[in-house]
Amino acid sequence: MSAPLHKARPAGPGRALPDTQQGMRRRNLSRVMHTVSAEGPLSRAAVASRIGLTRAAVSTLVDELIRSGLLEELGPERPGRVGRPGSALAVSGRGPAGIGAEIGVDHLAVCAVDLRGRVRSRAVRHVANRDRSPGPVLGELTELTERVVAEVEAEGLWPAGLAVAVPGLVARDARTVVRAPNLGWLDTDLGDLLPAGLPLTVANEANFGALAELWLGEGTPRDFLHVSAEIGIGAAVVVDGRLLHGNRGFAGELGHVPVRPDGPECACGGRGCLEQYAGEEAVLRAAGLEPGEDRVGLLAGRAEQGDPDVRRALEDAGTALGIALTGAVNLLDPESVVLGGALSGLAPWLLPSLRSELARRTAGPACPVSVSPLGPEGPLLGAAHSVVRGVLDDPAAVAERA
Amino acid sequence: MSAPLHKARPAGPGRALPDTQQGMRRRNLSRVMHTVSAEGPLSRAAVASRIGLTRAAVSTLVDELIRSGLLEELGPERPGRVGRPGSALAVSGRGPAGIGAEIGVDHLAVCAVDLRGRVRSRAVRHVANRDRSPGPVLGELTELTERVVAEVEAEGLWPAGLAVAVPGLVARDARTVVRAPNLGWLDTDLGDLLPAGLPLTVANEANFGALAELWLGEGTPRDFLHVSAEIGIGAAVVVDGRLLHGNRGFAGELGHVPVRPDGPECACGGRGCLEQYAGEEAVLRAAGLEPGEDRVGLLAGRAEQGDPDVRRALEDAGTALGIALTGAVNLLDPESVVLGGALSGLAPWLLPSLRSELARRTAGPACPVSVSPLGPEGPLLGAAHSVVRGVLDDPAAVAERA
Repeated sequence: MSAPLHKARPAGPGRALPDTQQGMRRRNLSRVMHTVSAEGPLSRAAVASRIGLTRAAVSTLVDELIRSGLLEELGPERPGRVGRPGSALAVSGRGPAGIGAEIGVDHLAVCAVDLRGRVRSRAVRHVANRDRSPGPVLGELTELTERVVAEVEAEGLWPAGLAVAVPGLVARDARTVVRAPNLGWLDTDLGDLLPAGLPLTVANEANFGALAELWLGEGTPRDFLHVSAEIGIGAAVVVDGRLLHGNRGFAGELGHVPVRPDGPECACGGRGCLEQYAGEEAVLRAAGLEPGEDRVGLLAGRAEQGDPDVRRALEDAGTALGIALTGAVNLLDPESVVLGGALSGLAPWLLPSLRSELARRTAGPACPVSVSPLGPEGPLLGAAHSVVRGVLDDPAAVAERA
Repeated sequence: MSAPLHKARPAGPGRALPDTQQGMRRRNLSRVMHTVSAEGPLSRAAVASRIGLTRAAVSTLVDELIRSGLLEELGPERPGRVGRPGSALAVSGRGPAGIGAEIGVDHLAVCAVDLRGRVRSRAVRHVANRDRSPGPVLGELTELTERVVAEVEAEGLWPAGLAVAVPGLVARDARTVVRAPNLGWLDTDLGDLLPAGLPLTVANEANFGALAELWLGEGTPRDFLHVSAEIGIGAAVVVDGRLLHGNRGFAGELGHVPVRPDGPECACGGRGCLEQYAGEEAVLRAAGLEPGEDRVGLLAGRAEQGDPDVRRALEDAGTALGIALTGAVNLLDPESVVLGGALSGLAPWLLPSLRSELARRTAGPACPVSVSPLGPEGPLLGAAHSVVRGVLDDPAAVAERA
C-alpha cells in the first residue's frame, strides 16, 4: 500500500531483480486497472488497444481482476457504437476501499473512498489535540475508523488499508511520527496504537495534500510545489508525479527556510525562518490577535471586514512566503506552486504580495502560484486515495489478501 | 544516450507501454552489462546468480553482448577457485567509448572514457571564451573532439556519443543553451555546431559534476546536493541516484536563492542572491582584488599566505553559502552536501563558516558537507561517463548502431 508514498530504492546493479514473467503479469494487471480507472467504462478490446497487448492477453488479465472483485462487467455497451457490442468494464464499486484519516491540532477525521474515487463514508470530530498524549488521540481515531469501516462493509466494500495524515515529520518507515511540535509528540510509533490487520501508512499532511492535488486537481502538473499550513508551514515537492521524500523522509520543511537570516529566533535553532513570518501564530501576533481555536476563520473574517492590522499582517506573510518560495523555485524549477490546506482560506490576502515578491525576484516569467480547490480537505482525501492508488498499482497483492 | 540525464516522463495510465518480451530482453541485457561492469570479471554462472536468471538465459544474453563487442571473454578463470572453471567475462576495453567535452569560461576540454571507465584520451586548451560567439568556440571544440576520437579509434574503440558540459542553463531538449551569462550566450542550439553523426547531450556543468560524484566518488550517497561554482554558483540535486531537472531543466539555481532579501541587486532581477556573496567575482571584490584569469588560484594563493582580507571574504562567502544551504537542506533533506568544481579548491577557507552556519540553523544533527575528490575534473568526467552509462543502460540500442 505504501508504493505511491514510499518509493523503494531501485535495486543497484548487483542486486537487480530479474525481469520475470510473474513480474510482467503483475505490471500488466496494474496497467489494466489504471486504464479502466482513468478511462472506463471500456470494452476488453478498447483496453487491449490502449495498453498495446493482444485481446486474448487482456481477457486473461481482466478475468483474473473480475474474480478478485477489482473489476466489474457492466453488461453490453450502449448501442449507437459501430461493431459488435462488447461488455463494458469498470472498476468495482464494491471491492476494496481506501481508508484515510487525519490527525489535526483541532480535529480528527476519517473517510472511506472506493476504487471509483467516491467518498462512501466520512466521520469528523472537533477536539483539541494540542499537547494531548498519543494514546487517547489514537483511541478516538480508532473509534472513528471502526465506525467508517463498519459503514462501508455494510455496503459490500472491504478496507484495503489505512493511511493517516499527521501535522509533523514522519520517518521513512511510514509509521513513526518523529516530531509533531503542535501535538507535542516525539518519536511516536502509530503502528501499535491503531487498528491491527489493516496495512498502515503514516505521512505528513502536506504530502497527502500534494498527492490529492496531483490525483484529484484539474490540470495539476506533474512537477509542483504544494505549500500548506496549519500552525507550522509545510511543503511537499512533487517531481514527475512522485513525492520527494528526502533522506530521512523530512523533505519539504519550507517553514524553516531562512527568510531574514538575522530575524527572530525559531524553535528549530535558526533565525528568521519563514514560520516566524507566515505561520498562523506569527500572523496572529503581528495582527495583535490572541491565538484561539479557529485561527484561519478569525483571520479571514477580520481581513474580509477590512481590518488594517490583519490585512498588513497577511500582506507581510505573503512577502515572506514570496522570498522563501523564490529560493525553492530556483532550486526545484517546478511548473507551479499550489497553496493548499488552511493557507488556501487566506489566499485572497496573501497572494498579491506573494506573487509580486516572486515576480520581482525572478528573471523571465515567474512561476505561477495557484490555490488548491481541495483546500483543507486535501490531506484527508489524499490519504484515502493513496490506498486506492496502491490497489491500482499492484492489484495482484490486494487480490492475494482479499 | 540521454537516458541518465533526461529522464523521460513515465507514460501515464492511458499511454502505458506494454511489458513485452522484447522490452524484457533489452532490460535483461542491461542488467548483465551493469553487473559485469560493477563486479566483473565474472563467470556466466556468477552473473546468472547475481541477477536471478537461469544460466541458459544469461548465456544467450552474454553471447549477444559479445557479438556486439560490449563484453569480452578473458579465458578460463584463474585456478584456486572451487568447481569447474568458467570463462570470465569483462566489459570490453575496445568497444564503445564515451566522449565528454567541457566548455569553460577559461578553457575547453575533451576526453574519451572506455566501458571500463578508463580515460583513454584527453585534450585541453586554455582559451578566454568570455563573450566569444558560439561559432568559433564550438569550432575549436570540434577540432579537439576530432583529435580525441581519432586517438581512440586508432586503439580499436568507437565513439558512442558526445556529452558537453556548459556553464549555463540548458533546455530539456539537451541541446540548447538557454542562458550562459559568463559566455554571453543566449538560446544557442549546439546541435548544429558540433560534429554530426554522434548522439549529443548538452547539460549544465553542475549536473555532470554531480553525476561524476555519484558514479565515481567513494561512498557517495544516492541523495545529495552537489554545489559547484565558477563565476556563477550552480547546484545539482540528486534524488535516489537521479538528477532532478525541473520543469524547464533549470533546477539547481542555488546562486539565486535569496540570502539577504534586502541585499545588493543581482542581474537575475532579485536582491541579495547567494551569488552576490559567494560567487568568485563577489569574493574578489570583497577582498579588494581584480578579477583576472585564474581567479580561484589567486584567492587560494592569497588565503594560503594568510591575507586577512581574502580570508575574511572567503569566511563571509562560507556564511552566505551556509544560509542558502540551510534552506536547501530543509527543502530537500539530502544525505549530504558535496562541494565540487572550482569551489573545492577554496574549501579550506569556506568550510568552517559554512558548516557552523548550517549547524546553528538546524535542529538535530546538521547535514554533512564534504569536498569532492574530483574537484574541477568532475564535469568533464561526468560528461564522458554519462555516455558510458547510456551504453550500460541500453546496450541493445548501441549494438544496433555499432
